[in-house]
Amino acid sequence: MTGWLVVAGLGPGDEALVTPQVSAALAEATDIVGYIPYVRRIAPRPGLTLHATDNRVELDRARHALEMAQAGRRVVVVSSGDPGVFAMASALFEAVEAGPLSWRCIDIRVLPGVTAMLAAAARIGAPLGHDFCAINLSDNLKPWDVIARRLTLAVQADFAIALYNPRSASRPDGFGHALDLLRGVCEPGRILIFARAVTTPEESLRVVTLAEATPEMADMRTVVLIGSSATRIIPRDGTPIVYTPRSAAS
Amino acid sequence: MTGWLVVAGLGPGDEALVTPQVSAALAEATDIVGYIPYVRRIAPRPGLTLHATDNRVELDRARHALEMAQAGRRVVVVSSGDPGVFAMASALFEAVEAGPLSWRCIDIRVLPGVTAMLAAAARIGAPLGHDFCAINLSDNLKPWDVIARRLTLAVQADFAIALYNPRSASRPDGFGHALDLLRGVCEPGRILIFARAVTTPEESLRVVTLAEATPEMADMRTVVLIGSSATRIIPRDGTPIVYTPRSAAS
Repeated sequence: MTGWLVVAGLGPGDEALVTPQVSAALAEATDIVGYIPYVRRIAPRPGLTLHATDNRVELDRARHALEMAQAGRRVVVVSSGDPGVFAMASALFEAVEAGPLSWRCIDIRVLPGVTAMLAAAARIGAPLGHDFCAINLSDNLKPWDVIARRLTLAVQADFAIALYNPRSASRPDGFGHALDLLRGVCEPGRILIFARAVTTPEESLRVVTLAEATPEMADMRTVVLIGSSATRIIPRDGTPIVYTPRSAAS
Repeated sequence: MTGWLVVAGLGPGDEALVTPQVSAALAEATDIVGYIPYVRRIAPRPGLTLHATDNRVELDRARHALEMAQAGRRVVVVSSGDPGVFAMASALFEAVEAGPLSWRCIDIRVLPGVTAMLAAAARIGAPLGHDFCAINLSDNLKPWDVIARRLTLAVQADFAIALYNPRSASRPDGFGHALDLLRGVCEPGRILIFARAVTTPEESLRVVTLAEATPEMADMRTVVLIGSSATRIIPRDGTPIVYTPRSAAS
């Protein structure tokens, strides 16, 4: 049996957002590898082994997947959203580079998915409709000064900004610092969207100004979208529409 | 009949990347609206009217779609990739804001898709595996100095960068200017990926250094990915793997 390794994005939560390409890979797999809540999304069946592991063991998980693929298994490493955005694809290739040369011959494919910021944007309008950036707010793997510098330059560039992993129990303070930083460089009316658990039954969407934003509005299931200076609100009954126009002035 | 309007992302080209959510909307539609090459992707069937229009008429197209939805039609506006990334969603909401108040009551849904930069990244490894930004290089709707400033700040922030719409027959020179700008602020070994028509039969992927890059390597079907200073190449037989590590130093 010839093994292979697929790194697949399951999208933000709604099964109707899982691409047919990913569904086909899951149907052919012998082994599923991933963080517990993502592996939980895969239906058990005979012949399929589920390997669910805890957070922060990405490299161990990657090596395990590579070893199984080399031994002839058909392995799918599952990520939520898109695997190339703050997820398992980068960890996998880190393991490949550091591992035996034979790992470079393994049939590895990355299957893209709908990443959280784009799902969140779609639910509220088109806040990322012009130039934008994505910043991982977790300081597990980079120092806070790098995050602060990037956030400052992103505001200077007038990007709309998506913040991934804004806040967790082990990192309760970073997002508050980010809000303080933004208050120093943006007008108080700057638009923020707190999009939690988008496309799942627990979804919540909240549109506030920077002046109204508090750290408690975010947790690990939230992606925070920060409008550019041009981002606009269209009021209507219920949740407003938020969009960023396609044009920009000098 | 109650009309609705869906703005749907068809993904980068491969039909296996169209989400089931989008397929379901297409199956229920009475009218498909969009740019000619995207509408061409929709199979004709009885009861479905295809309204294919030329490029650069986004607002007319949006108004037409809104009028039909208000008249009770089930309208899908199709974009390639994700509709919220340099595509029809922003134009649609621009039309809503400028239009009659009654348009704000139309049932409008944006259905996300796999955007070109993420499909391209998946095909080559994980070059967007850390903080990154997306810049539309078309100067149809923004002056060149805004593009140049954003590109410079993005390099200072050490983002990986995705350039959409790098070059067209009507804008032959901008991408050359962008390369000149990059040569002034990045090392000559900076990694660039020219990803053309990803996931289609015409796909081509090319990994070069900034020193090797030429304007002719890009056209309107190309998305250009520029690595951060940390982006790495893993050599192997055939196309190398390119990835950006998850960690960053101060």
